[in-house]
Amino acid sequence: MIKVGILGATGYAGAEIARILISHPDAETVFYGSRTYAGQRFSEVFPYFRGLIDEKYDVLREPALDVMAEECDVIFTATPQGYLSSCLSKEILSKTKVIDLSADYRLKDIEVYKKWYPGIDRDDDPSLLSEAVYGLCEINREEIKKARLIANPGCFTTCSILTAYPLVAEGLIDEDTLIVDAKSGTSGAGRSAKVQNLFCEVNESVKPYGVTTHRHTPEIEEQLGYAKRNAGGDGDPILINFTPHLIPMHRGILATEYASLKALPDGTYPDETMIRAAYEKYYGTERFIRLLPKGSWPETRFTARSEFTDIGFTVDERTKRVVMAGALDNLVKGAAGQAVQNMNIMFALPEEEGLLQVAAF
Amino acid sequence: MIKVGILGATGYAGAEIARILISHPDAETVFYGSRTYAGQRFSEVFPYFRGLIDEKYDVLREPALDVMAEECDVIFTATPQGYLSSCLSKEILSKTKVIDLSADYRLKDIEVYKKWYPGIDRDDDPSLLSEAVYGLCEINREEIKKARLIANPGCFTTCSILTAYPLVAEGLIDEDTLIVDAKSGTSGAGRSAKVQNLFCEVNESVKPYGVTTHRHTPEIEEQLGYAKRNAGGDGDPILINFTPHLIPMHRGILATEYASLKALPDGTYPDETMIRAAYEKYYGTERFIRLLPKGSWPETRFTARSEFTDIGFTVDERTKRVVMAGALDNLVKGAAGQAVQNMNIMFALPEEEGLLQVAAF
Amino acid sequence: MIKVGILGATGYAGAEIARILISHPDAETVFYGSRTYAGQRFSEVFPYFRGLIDEKYDVLREPALDVMAEECDVIFTATPQGYLSSCLSKEILSKTKVIDLSADYRLKDIEVYKKWYPGIDRDDDPSLLSEAVYGLCEINREEIKKARLIANPGCFTTCSILTAYPLVAEGLIDEDTLIVDAKSGTSGAGRSAKVQNLFCEVNESVKPYGVTTHRHTPEIEEQLGYAKRNAGGDGDPILINFTPHLIPMHRGILATEYASLKALPDGTYPDETMIRAAYEKYYGTERFIRLLPKGSWPETRFTARSEFTDIGFTVDERTKRVVMAGALDNLVKGAAGQAVQNMNIMFALPEEEGLLQVAAF
Amino acid sequence: MIKVGILGATGYAGAEIARILISHPDAETVFYGSRTYAGQRFSEVFPYFRGLIDEKYDVLREPALDVMAEECDVIFTATPQGYLSSCLSKEILSKTKVIDLSADYRLKDIEVYKKWYPGIDRDDDPSLLSEAVYGLCEINREEIKKARLIANPGCFTTCSILTAYPLVAEGLIDEDTLIVDAKSGTSGAGRSAKVQNLFCEVNESVKPYGVTTHRHTPEIEEQLGYAKRNAGGDGDPILINFTPHLIPMHRGILATEYASLKALPDGTYPDETMIRAAYEKYYGTERFIRLLPKGSWPETRFTARSEFTDIGFTVDERTKRVVMAGALDNLVKGAAGQAVQNMNIMFALPEEEGLLQVAAF
Repeated sequence: MIKVGILGATGYAGAEIARILISHPDAETVFYGSRTYAGQRFSEVFPYFRGLIDEKYDVLREPALDVMAEECDVIFTATPQGYLSSCLSKEILSKTKVIDLSADYRLKDIEVYKKWYPGIDRDDDPSLLSEAVYGLCEINREEIKKARLIANPGCFTTCSILTAYPLVAEGLIDEDTLIVDAKSGTSGAGRSAKVQNLFCEVNESVKPYGVTTHRHTPEIEEQLGYAKRNAGGDGDPILINFTPHLIPMHRGILATEYASLKALPDGTYPDETMIRAAYEKYYGTERFIRLLPKGSWPETRFTARSEFTDIGFTVDERTKRVVMAGALDNLVKGAAGQAVQNMNIMFALPEEEGLLQVAAF
Repeated sequence: MIKVGILGATGYAGAEIARILISHPDAETVFYGSRTYAGQRFSEVFPYFRGLIDEKYDVLREPALDVMAEECDVIFTATPQGYLSSCLSKEILSKTKVIDLSADYRLKDIEVYKKWYPGIDRDDDPSLLSEAVYGLCEINREEIKKARLIANPGCFTTCSILTAYPLVAEGLIDEDTLIVDAKSGTSGAGRSAKVQNLFCEVNESVKPYGVTTHRHTPEIEEQLGYAKRNAGGDGDPILINFTPHLIPMHRGILATEYASLKALPDGTYPDETMIRAAYEKYYGTERFIRLLPKGSWPETRFTARSEFTDIGFTVDERTKRVVMAGALDNLVKGAAGQAVQNMNIMFALPEEEGLLQVAAF
Repeated sequence: MIKVGILGATGYAGAEIARILISHPDAETVFYGSRTYAGQRFSEVFPYFRGLIDEKYDVLREPALDVMAEECDVIFTATPQGYLSSCLSKEILSKTKVIDLSADYRLKDIEVYKKWYPGIDRDDDPSLLSEAVYGLCEINREEIKKARLIANPGCFTTCSILTAYPLVAEGLIDEDTLIVDAKSGTSGAGRSAKVQNLFCEVNESVKPYGVTTHRHTPEIEEQLGYAKRNAGGDGDPILINFTPHLIPMHRGILATEYASLKALPDGTYPDETMIRAAYEKYYGTERFIRLLPKGSWPETRFTARSEFTDIGFTVDERTKRVVMAGALDNLVKGAAGQAVQNMNIMFALPEEEGLLQVAAF
Repeated sequence: MIKVGILGATGYAGAEIARILISHPDAETVFYGSRTYAGQRFSEVFPYFRGLIDEKYDVLREPALDVMAEECDVIFTATPQGYLSSCLSKEILSKTKVIDLSADYRLKDIEVYKKWYPGIDRDDDPSLLSEAVYGLCEINREEIKKARLIANPGCFTTCSILTAYPLVAEGLIDEDTLIVDAKSGTSGAGRSAKVQNLFCEVNESVKPYGVTTHRHTPEIEEQLGYAKRNAGGDGDPILINFTPHLIPMHRGILATEYASLKALPDGTYPDETMIRAAYEKYYGTERFIRLLPKGSWPETRFTARSEFTDIGFTVDERTKRVVMAGALDNLVKGAAGQAVQNMNIMFALPEEEGLLQVAAF
């Protein structure tokens, strides 16, 4: 039985890890960490856990990475930006594995990080950043198997990258034309008390936010740059427009993506068959990616509370563009579920263990 | 492996049975029945099942009780009122078990049934009605173990009865004063296309409906009459006011109940300790009923997508009343989950098998 | 043109007064007061007012009752409990009228106030409390005409009282059996940043709160006590159970009320005709109360953003009870709209001026 | 007093016209037409109109254009595609004005119409199509003044065109790169009973639909083609990608639009000042268009139930694109409100009459 610690257990992502692990046959949460609620019972803060948590672990403890390293085989950190990098060390990694849901280890270029995350000190050991593996399971599975430190991808990022990856990697689209218009449920905004996230401010409305400035932008750009290398590119990040929108629903991300098709040598453009073949090549055997049949489009509800990413697409012959849409649950595949999927891979468990739940809308 | 058939698989309750059984270790759905969608794939009607259903069963078949009796160990019928009683027979029950989610076998007095369900022919074999066991698991567990035919309780009914049962059974309240004010998510209204259930008609509004005339009334009255027998009553139905309300949410029922306390022989009234003791007596060891601590009240979200019923109460010394509130998920404990719990009991499986999911709101 | 000041203009009720007055032909808001947002533009805090507010008044000013008394003909105070009573004086009332949306002047018995609002100092001039008129327009219209200080009723209170008033006043129901089960949209919880009011905590759930302890209870009890005096009672408050519930919608209150019918001298019970006659007697000519036809029940959406209160009822011959339901918009008739209706009455304007908007759901 | 007739009064758009006209000082609805509900009272179908409609007009009548032409000064037709063109004639237009909310007269090229609206007969008098004026008030005001027949624009169309119009007309963007990603509340789907529009199918989900095939596409393309003519283009339609999404809210459309900036003669690109100047040039004096300050973005709630269109934008120097977003209420500025605005212009009334309501979210 893998012993698990969760830091930030009282945020939405942390609590979701706890929820998923309740029905995981090979893992058990033995440390619930929370700065704000330390001393309270976890099942009091989240009453839906009543009757489902072992009494002896049902207390929220002060965060303490060193203590956790002794007690836990793996630590999930759903903590504020900059927290983990301020206290992680090689010694801790020698004792336990860490799966980080913050952005601390997602961007390989620390200068890019500093630009998009201003105000966060990063005088930490750069070798940890080098060591960290970007935990997008379907893309980096082999590296994840050997990793001690996982940078769990962002929610928008997971959805945006998975939706476009095969087309970039196969050189079918002009990356410079890629536009990602994303829609997110409100749990993505976190559980802190802000007027803008009150029910009466979110309900019955849609708005864009972080236009041209959202922090998931460079993460998508870096990873799709790697994809481009497959197609003969230099591996440098690509440049995109990414616009998130807040939707009056609890969970779910939908990324609608637009890109111009690259002309083939014969002057024609890739058709639906070629596009589908590219998706099949990368995802054909993936358990948690469902490529939809022609004419079908993802709806976030069909992925809610599940680990699945649903992807649909069409070729627009009028405009020579491909329009793609990917959907997932921002708290599951976009955060906690993917973190557990990473854990399964790292511990050589069946990748789908604890994750085979049907969407329940 | 128990072979399961579901009639009415494309309604909300039927689909919920299918969803729960996906992660049930000892049961497998081998027959999805639907009159409306016969011939289509189940995973096309409900795309969230894509990738989770065995190809060879993934087709919706015409309802046929006799065929199902050959292929299935148990049949769940989530069918219109009067359907099952029009075609069920002893011969079928000799081959398979039936758990009925309609009201056909819930009311033991056929005259009461005819009054509340006018227009439905009931010239069926009355011995089947006699044989049927009312499948309220926590109350009728011993009878359910031996049953071939289960009348699965209604959603409002389950919530309303469980919330008041111990206080009636222990004679602590005056049953004639019981008032049940219930609030239900919209999935309770079913999946048929009606203007009144459109998003724009339900969203941002609350309304009462079926005031003094809702069909779950006699079901509550009959069962609480049995509870009263425990307290020395005659077992006749009690008389209550039951008012359901439609709430702009998907799932969940909250029943707020009011009753005057019965004076004790010494002229005082039952206090919170006595009330709590009564609840503990009946539910203290129940896996799926959570009696909340003093000052806590149920919220439907904490039971959503789970089998739990949460109950809270307080004694009002000003008015000499007890105010109780019970919450559950109308599609799970209020329908599909309780049906599976009944199946587990009937097949001598652990009662919680396939049902230990944490609420995911 | 009546010059209006609003204190607490950045709460939901204060902003709603501002909204209503934009289309009021005889009133103009000249002072927007807010402690928290002082110095900002009102139309920046609430961007939907952009282009609709006179530039010269479009700034939020520090609260200052004395300044307002000089500049305004009437002041609306949507301020925290205890604020107004801490600074109101006869001198201010000699210069301007005050319509208070807090509870400071609602309860005539200061001891009852102190019990339900503990921790609030009330060493203010008791003659102001004596002078204040309870601003339930349909009941106290004549007194309101002459008033300088209005205690604008609470949202639950307005709905609960209006729904039961005629039946109590005509002695048709046993007041001791009155139970009020109320459901409220989330704007009733105010605009302060609390975790419990976040979208993700409110959405897709229903919960009771303040069970047996909600502060609107004594207000209902006092006013219905006055109604009882009409029927020969002593005018003392009656005792009720009042339970509010939080509903995942923006606006609206529905109060479902239950009471046992009083036997008539001949041993029979009041029938629907008698009940309807009582409602017609009190509300027959009221512009903003709509008594629904038999079989119709109020839905909050039909009153949303309007000044109307819709009331429906039925007599249950089985239980000898009447079940009533009233609906209104908690921010309009339950707060800002009634405040403006009071203003219209106090200034001898047509009562419906600025208030004849159709519900827009 | 202008006498108004509404055909299709029981759809969402038709009922919204009725609602707006209740508080219009110079117009009165004297004919409510509905095929489905003919014979019923309008205030029974929509109970929120109770007490607000003149008794003598409160009945739904069978559609009859010739009768209406006699009784009404203007007819609003919120009718199915192809209905109006099947029965409109010059004779009717000689007696009354018609404002059509269907698509019958929106596309000037009948071949384009037939391609996007297959199955609809259009053997009607082509001179009526020639005569019809496209009722986008801010763009075609002068023509509207003289019109007898208005093609009231679609909801997505109004929002999409207004948001991009000045930048196309001033030649600041490369029209071939324009991408419109739109989000709409569910009232846009109409009031007919379809499973896909049930509360439980829409709630808690987002989905794209009509990808590359939505009928508002050619309408946007045609009108922006006219805009391009301003900038020296040929006036032919441009080619865009338009993707609508269904959002779990009642009202509101948000169009997020992306376009590459056109290089200026000196090789630099238009900056925010130039872009803003273009918007100011076209909308600076418009009552119902609010250009937001830098850094502000529209939220649909701030336009809900109002006639306003809010527009925000930013220049992305990294990608050389402009990102724009426009928001409006699909039932008001996107349908009924714009129809009334057209009526005001046609009858030489102040354009804002009856339309100056503040958003009420």
